[in-house]
Amino acid sequence: MEALLDFFTRFVAQLQSPTLAFLLGGILIAALGTRLDIPEAIYKFVVFMLLMRVGLEGGMSIREANLTAMLLPALFAVLIGIGIVLLGRVTLALLPGVRTEDGLATAGLFGAVSGSTLAAAIVVMESEGISYEHWAPALYPFMDIPALVMAIVLANLYLKRKDGSGDKVKVWPIVKESLQGSALSALLLGIALGLFTRPEKVFEGFYDPLFKGLLSVLMLVMGMEAYARLNELRRVAHWYAVYATVAPIVHGLIAFGLGWIAHELTGFSPGGVILLAVIAGSSSDISGPPTLRAGIPTANPSAYIGASTSIGTPVAIAIGIPLYIGLAQVVFGS
Amino acid sequence: MEALLDFFTRFVAQLQSPTLAFLLGGILIAALGTRLDIPEAIYKFVVFMLLMRVGLEGGMSIREANLTAMLLPALFAVLIGIGIVLLGRVTLALLPGVRTEDGLATAGLFGAVSGSTLAAAIVVMESEGISYEHWAPALYPFMDIPALVMAIVLANLYLKRKDGSGDKVKVWPIVKESLQGSALSALLLGIALGLFTRPEKVFEGFYDPLFKGLLSVLMLVMGMEAYARLNELRRVAHWYAVYATVAPIVHGLIAFGLGWIAHELTGFSPGGVILLAVIAGSSSDISGPPTLRAGIPTANPSAYIGASTSIGTPVAIAIGIPLYIGLAQVVFGS
Amino acid sequence: MEALLDFFTRFVAQLQSPTLAFLLGGILIAALGTRLDIPEAIYKFVVFMLLMRVGLEGGMSIREANLTAMLLPALFAVLIGIGIVLLGRVTLALLPGVRTEDGLATAGLFGAVSGSTLAAAIVVMESEGISYEHWAPALYPFMDIPALVMAIVLANLYLKRKDGSGDKVKVWPIVKESLQGSALSALLLGIALGLFTRPEKVFEGFYDPLFKGLLSVLMLVMGMEAYARLNELRRVAHWYAVYATVAPIVHGLIAFGLGWIAHELTGFSPGGVILLAVIAGSSSDISGPPTLRAGIPTANPSAYIGASTSIGTPVAIAIGIPLYIGLAQVVFGS
Repeated sequence: MEALLDFFTRFVAQLQSPTLAFLLGGILIAALGTRLDIPEAIYKFVVFMLLMRVGLEGGMSIREANLTAMLLPALFAVLIGIGIVLLGRVTLALLPGVRTEDGLATAGLFGAVSGSTLAAAIVVMESEGISYEHWAPALYPFMDIPALVMAIVLANLYLKRKDGSGDKVKVWPIVKESLQGSALSALLLGIALGLFTRPEKVFEGFYDPLFKGLLSVLMLVMGMEAYARLNELRRVAHWYAVYATVAPIVHGLIAFGLGWIAHELTGFSPGGVILLAVIAGSSSDISGPPTLRAGIPTANPSAYIGASTSIGTPVAIAIGIPLYIGLAQVVFGS
Repeated sequence: MEALLDFFTRFVAQLQSPTLAFLLGGILIAALGTRLDIPEAIYKFVVFMLLMRVGLEGGMSIREANLTAMLLPALFAVLIGIGIVLLGRVTLALLPGVRTEDGLATAGLFGAVSGSTLAAAIVVMESEGISYEHWAPALYPFMDIPALVMAIVLANLYLKRKDGSGDKVKVWPIVKESLQGSALSALLLGIALGLFTRPEKVFEGFYDPLFKGLLSVLMLVMGMEAYARLNELRRVAHWYAVYATVAPIVHGLIAFGLGWIAHELTGFSPGGVILLAVIAGSSSDISGPPTLRAGIPTANPSAYIGASTSIGTPVAIAIGIPLYIGLAQVVFGS
Repeated sequence: MEALLDFFTRFVAQLQSPTLAFLLGGILIAALGTRLDIPEAIYKFVVFMLLMRVGLEGGMSIREANLTAMLLPALFAVLIGIGIVLLGRVTLALLPGVRTEDGLATAGLFGAVSGSTLAAAIVVMESEGISYEHWAPALYPFMDIPALVMAIVLANLYLKRKDGSGDKVKVWPIVKESLQGSALSALLLGIALGLFTRPEKVFEGFYDPLFKGLLSVLMLVMGMEAYARLNELRRVAHWYAVYATVAPIVHGLIAFGLGWIAHELTGFSPGGVILLAVIAGSSSDISGPPTLRAGIPTANPSAYIGASTSIGTPVAIAIGIPLYIGLAQVVFGS
């Protein structure tokens, strides 16, 4: 009861945090028909800046980290990525009005990871003074790639069985396609630069101080985008909206549970558990869609992009983040 | 006499301030045929950043403000916005070679407000240590919207009388169109976020520190734009150039007088009086033109945009701002 | 021997500096087929910001400088600019498979100056605590313009002799074309603003603090661009690749020698000598190509842009900068 009250207090406070406020503000002005336009070039650059910042910090901390501590969380991340797609295969993909390949593409997108949701969680946790293993954001690709690969492989197996054609589905091109995506490239390059070079000064003087502010700009864009995509979502089966509302929380709670196990077994920090849940609850908005479009060309982008952008991400940020933080306080003590 | 000397000293000093120097630098390199190009995407983003910064500060200060103090200046702002258009109707719109609808559109643009001129005044006042009510920039829409509405309504009434058609002119769509403009959206969103959420950290860590620098970039763009638009202005009647030179100062001085009355009656600060004059003296460069284009489709954009961008704005910044500051020192003491 | 060791130590350390690390990172991810894209608008703006920063500092320091000290280095800069083109005329332009006009255009580009290489050297020198005359970056146009003019004049004389036509080659339009280029415009405007106005606050609060970070972004873009241009280079004679590898170092060493003479004669600082060598060793990537394209329309851009962007600039930054710094320590003591 007290936990519930705590969640609601946190939720209301969260509504006033810049991160969420800019997201909701973006939805609001888009709904009011604003002609405000944050240009595509700015949006792309902001995403690059945020992922480079997250990557650099990850890389610099991996340098000093005890990497065996990363093994179990990374394994869980892979399992969650695969598990989300399998779960989507036996839920969403079987619902009336949902084509199997569309359902799988959607599940793949919800298994994949959102850099902006991750960045939002980092800013909230820093402002609340919750510490975490700085390599935790590096769990991103361990969940993102398996989810996308799994969705594309399952969809292609399904389509080929329907066709009766016997071609093999090749995994490596899908992995490569994922790694070459703009978000993952920026994150991995940041990790590599943080790991092998000395970017401390440029991190402290540029990427880190601009982080919060650029995130507020990104949240505004994502809010406007979420509203704009709602129309697309309306054109497909309502089950997508149901899935997009429920799935982020279910995925986040499953990941929270696995993170808890890692906490008990290897001392994974409560902050790390929260981040694992955030990563699992997020759905890809930047790099996932093009990979899926290339990998499952017959799937309908309105279904999976609409579900992820207009419902999945707002739910993951507005409800997911305060939920996992509140839960961590109940479970691990404040 | 001493006041005049003071104005000239201030004017020369002002020429060296980054704000004006970048504006004049932009005019200069454009005149010399530079191929330097600040991309449209950057320009739009800079404008967003400046108006968000002004809006956030306005919103945060309205939170703690005694709002009754805002009533009289807001009323004056509305009156000035309407008055500028009426004044334009009986001066510019009656001059030889000026079509009535073109004259009204131009007067509407000069009644509307420029976010960049406002930002320039804020930077100059902060560097000179002149304080003002932080809600004063929130007077912007109170002048901007009535001016645009008045100009569009008068022009349509005129055109319909000429036509002999009896349709009514609808006011609400024009108000809505104004509110949805990119500049006003950003400003009002900033005010709402400042008022209802807690953006202090992102304001202090991002929007505020970047304010001056981004303004210098914007001034450079506006200088280059002012030169580029001169050609358009040359193609229309010379009376536009006369109006664009004289009107900003006349409007600013009228507003200064009304602000002075507010100072006597309700204690409106000298800095607030200066800002009211700056807002009145400015002419819209971002959000006004599209609204006018939609509202008075037969008016010639070369006339009103050329007059505002290539003469109105440079006069409002280079002459208006130091003039009102100097005047305030004479009137209210230093 | 010790000097060689010192160079290698410095070279390895340099590989870890953000400047070089981002350049190599860009080459690496481009080679791996990344879809990461730093938009053109961002690239152009970053270049503007860097050159404005370099220009402002130059202008502010010229204000207090003893300008007679600048005379000899400026004269040497002119001589180097012309000398590089003449050297290219009697080496590259005579090699088999190299058309004379292509060779001259390439030599012109290598005589012209790269703002990004200059910015990279400034960041490295500041992080190593090496001081220099702050007007030294203002030597840029003294080398850049004569090189471009010389290349275009020689190429046109050659082409007209071949044609048998007797038209005169006009020098002033080429100088004007160079001065109007985006990089030189930004640099010269920065110098003028630094010299005649008071931009200290906007320099210290905006242009200077963002310098290092924006440079890291630019280096990433240039690395990706270098890889992308390699294909173009493969389509032309291999001699371009040889020239692009050797020329930056040869030009840098010649400039180092002349700088040394200026050091002995007029006390030009060791840091100034390093910057003169860096400027000479750099090859233009932004403003040079359009000027050459306009001036020598028949020359093949794949040859000169490919050679400069994909080999010349990486060599100038990765090998040139640590080499001249190491050399300065040997020659002038640490």
